[in-house]
Amino acid sequence: MASVTAALKSRVRRPQLLNKLMKAEDTLKFFKDGQYLGWSGFTGVGYPKMVPVALANHVEKNNLQGKMKFNLFVGASSGAECEDRWAANDMIDRRYPHQVGKNIKKGINAGRIRFADKHLSMFAQDLVYGYYTKDKPGNKLDIVIVEATAITEEGWIVPGASVGATPELLQMADKIIIEVNTRIPSFEGLHDITMCSLPPNRKPYLIMGTEDRIGTTAIPIDLDKVIAVVESDRPDMTGPNTPADAKSEAIANHLIEFLEHEVKMGRLPDNLLPLQSGIGNIANAVIGGLAKSKFKDVTVFTEVLQDTFLEFFDSDKLKFASATSIRFSPEGFDRFYNNWENYKDRLLLRSQQVSNSPEIIRRLGCIAMNTPVEFDIYGHANSTMVCGSGMLNGLGGSGDFLRNAKLSIMHTPSTRPTSVDPNGISCVVPMSSHVDQTEHDLDVYVTEQGLADLRGLCPRDRAEVIIKKCAHPEYQPLLKDYLDMATKKCMAVGRGHQPHMLDKVFKMHTNLMEKKTMKIDSW
Amino acid sequence: MASVTAALKSRVRRPQLLNKLMKAEDTLKFFKDGQYLGWSGFTGVGYPKMVPVALANHVEKNNLQGKMKFNLFVGASSGAECEDRWAANDMIDRRYPHQVGKNIKKGINAGRIRFADKHLSMFAQDLVYGYYTKDKPGNKLDIVIVEATAITEEGWIVPGASVGATPELLQMADKIIIEVNTRIPSFEGLHDITMCSLPPNRKPYLIMGTEDRIGTTAIPIDLDKVIAVVESDRPDMTGPNTPADAKSEAIANHLIEFLEHEVKMGRLPDNLLPLQSGIGNIANAVIGGLAKSKFKDVTVFTEVLQDTFLEFFDSDKLKFASATSIRFSPEGFDRFYNNWENYKDRLLLRSQQVSNSPEIIRRLGCIAMNTPVEFDIYGHANSTMVCGSGMLNGLGGSGDFLRNAKLSIMHTPSTRPTSVDPNGISCVVPMSSHVDQTEHDLDVYVTEQGLADLRGLCPRDRAEVIIKKCAHPEYQPLLKDYLDMATKKCMAVGRGHQPHMLDKVFKMHTNLMEKKTMKIDSW
Repeated sequence: MASVTAALKSRVRRPQLLNKLMKAEDTLKFFKDGQYLGWSGFTGVGYPKMVPVALANHVEKNNLQGKMKFNLFVGASSGAECEDRWAANDMIDRRYPHQVGKNIKKGINAGRIRFADKHLSMFAQDLVYGYYTKDKPGNKLDIVIVEATAITEEGWIVPGASVGATPELLQMADKIIIEVNTRIPSFEGLHDITMCSLPPNRKPYLIMGTEDRIGTTAIPIDLDKVIAVVESDRPDMTGPNTPADAKSEAIANHLIEFLEHEVKMGRLPDNLLPLQSGIGNIANAVIGGLAKSKFKDVTVFTEVLQDTFLEFFDSDKLKFASATSIRFSPEGFDRFYNNWENYKDRLLLRSQQVSNSPEIIRRLGCIAMNTPVEFDIYGHANSTMVCGSGMLNGLGGSGDFLRNAKLSIMHTPSTRPTSVDPNGISCVVPMSSHVDQTEHDLDVYVTEQGLADLRGLCPRDRAEVIIKKCAHPEYQPLLKDYLDMATKKCMAVGRGHQPHMLDKVFKMHTNLMEKKTMKIDSW
Repeated sequence: MASVTAALKSRVRRPQLLNKLMKAEDTLKFFKDGQYLGWSGFTGVGYPKMVPVALANHVEKNNLQGKMKFNLFVGASSGAECEDRWAANDMIDRRYPHQVGKNIKKGINAGRIRFADKHLSMFAQDLVYGYYTKDKPGNKLDIVIVEATAITEEGWIVPGASVGATPELLQMADKIIIEVNTRIPSFEGLHDITMCSLPPNRKPYLIMGTEDRIGTTAIPIDLDKVIAVVESDRPDMTGPNTPADAKSEAIANHLIEFLEHEVKMGRLPDNLLPLQSGIGNIANAVIGGLAKSKFKDVTVFTEVLQDTFLEFFDSDKLKFASATSIRFSPEGFDRFYNNWENYKDRLLLRSQQVSNSPEIIRRLGCIAMNTPVEFDIYGHANSTMVCGSGMLNGLGGSGDFLRNAKLSIMHTPSTRPTSVDPNGISCVVPMSSHVDQTEHDLDVYVTEQGLADLRGLCPRDRAEVIIKKCAHPEYQPLLKDYLDMATKKCMAVGRGHQPHMLDKVFKMHTNLMEKKTMKIDSW
């Protein structure tokens, strides 16, 4: 039996729940091979840290690798010390809808982990529709492990740095384990929680501005389902922030120039429209660039906030930000906690079903910006898969935002290096080897070379602009040759709308796999 | 100067507008090469029939082919006697976002017509965003020609059998020509009209059920923009209905069995959820099957209603239908007009921005059903393009519905014939030669062979189920071989999530182009 610390007592305002207090190790008895589990967490923050680690220890100590496997559902990615260690110990059978980690990626690409990615807004609702538990008696998740930074008088859960799919996971839970984190501050007041109702009884999300609140500040749960409460003293194990480099700054400059032009032409208001930006160094450069720009009173409606948002807040140019998670570096979190009063009223965390809702994204007219693996000359983009087959991390919310934004923008360096060629991989290809975003969804592509505005263009015109503005000079002639040859060939047989040579279309990719460069001698 | 007929007088309740009455031929003076035009109309109904024909006559008579070309924007397809004749006369430079017709398709695939397809809900809003007129001084459409079946006291337009993008086209119009159709009955009362507002000032669509009204019954216009009123005596030139055949009935049976199962499992209510169905004989078979099924009080939230919906209404199993167009056969229209009282209160026509709104489709939890050109073993679908390059008709609203529905279903025969092989084309392929709908959007595929329920499956498991349930027996071994070989090859290099052999992936397609069959000897 664990003892009730003063810190824990101050966080749990529903005393009866402390009757269920136990050590992480004592919860092992609840778990068995084949169960369906849910974890809180999103982009590696707000995930349970004690019970998953105790389970991994247990498996390692007793050589249970491959003998204790779970169906694991988390809003997006979890911490490496949990999810990735589970993957290394062959503890994951099925995993939805996103992941980050060397071992989990390896397990997925080795066919050991049955993974599928899904639009993050949709994952949460499909879960409540019962689509992931339809072959399981009772249709519930056996155990949902959720991190709380406080528990209210009603026994409701106050999450930490993410909401993600936690409300829906709890709705679908048969049993619940709560990890109360006393190491990080209580996030109470920062969340706007809504539960998932089912058609035909759904109502509009009455969010007309990024700051609009429509829910509660904690997640209601069925207290009878709680089988354990565990105190957690571990922080979110985030890594360092990815700083901007010359290429990402060039991309950011093109982008900011474009946004300025749109304001000038009257197609955007002076303070822009709510921004969504992805993860990584380009996103960091863009947000960093905006913090230094002349735009004022900017709002953000996005999935995840990175360190540069702290700059953006401090610049006083960011008026309000809505997201589903705050994924700062350890230093970023320190800065955030130390200046809580400065940020807390300009920030809101919603569930991923709401942060990524097509309804709200379209209504607000968001400006969406994400990084693809590659995109093609006609405007389709690959967000997930290396050479059409190798999973990276998954789709995330890219499709939610790019399909519904007023301006749908993707940005990437024009090339990436391989071991033999600093420009061995062209991010502009004849045909995306996997399509996550279609030509019907994107407005603008940007590389450090330039910006291609595709609005109103037919596919062949798009190809000309993309090759000219976005492709690396070392690949421009190759891509132009492809376009010209394909156009000639397809026009001759009356199929010239989106010219392709299907027998050669992936020649750059197969060359890469064989020779570590996409530079082919000829088509 | 045209004379005011009694029929016309009875339809135009704003008498001042009759001062602008003229014959179609008299409007020729308003048109010149290079203009941006908008037409009302959607799926070949509700389009202007007098002025476009007068313009085509003018071009033919004066040999102006290729010398009078327009940028033409219509909600979806128009009548063949207008749009396709314009294409035959080389009168179309640019065309958005959908089309039907032999000559227009030919022009597009010959590179003469700059066409691009776009999600229909998005086309209308992108138009108001100014995306299609951004390179044009003033940013307006020069002339919008709209068909009305009545004009109200305020001078507002009562459309005919479609709403489509007419509200937005009128919002963007510099000048307006109204064709008042006195041949067909007034549709007054059947429409629910909303105009397009811009972010950040957008509000929710307060539609919680298919029958909810949120707008007016006519489209407000700026009367000062009206330059001509023309009386029209021509009907919508629709073709015959496509009847169901044995294959489409087999598909419908699989589908209805599946829906019954979902009701039984508690994942759908007894009266299902609002249905969306596409155009063609499979859609007809499905709706026909539902009219004979045991489902009651069914509702429909869709784009277009075909003839079989009349059966569905008459069976008293259809409670209410919301759409943006009614595309009946000539006989269907007669039946509809003759029984107006029976239908009028169970039917509503909205703009395509609303009928196809992601917000409403997701809220209502629609069941979406559409036909692809082909789909692949991992669940991506091609809705638009033959062998990756040849445009058929365009995307339409398939993406609006399939992305946002509660159940996203595609149905097609497992094969199509070529001139040398009755099963020369497999509709199940290793990789879709064009991707309009991604693996992240679809739940179910159906052919006459069977139904593949993909919910919750990882890509490799999806492939097994699709090949087993949906592929034609003559192609099953070939597809299974591909999957096995690709899996072995990709696993060996740690890229086995969605196994592909990029050098062979379109071998079935290239074989089809060369030998008119997808049956290859080996991989």
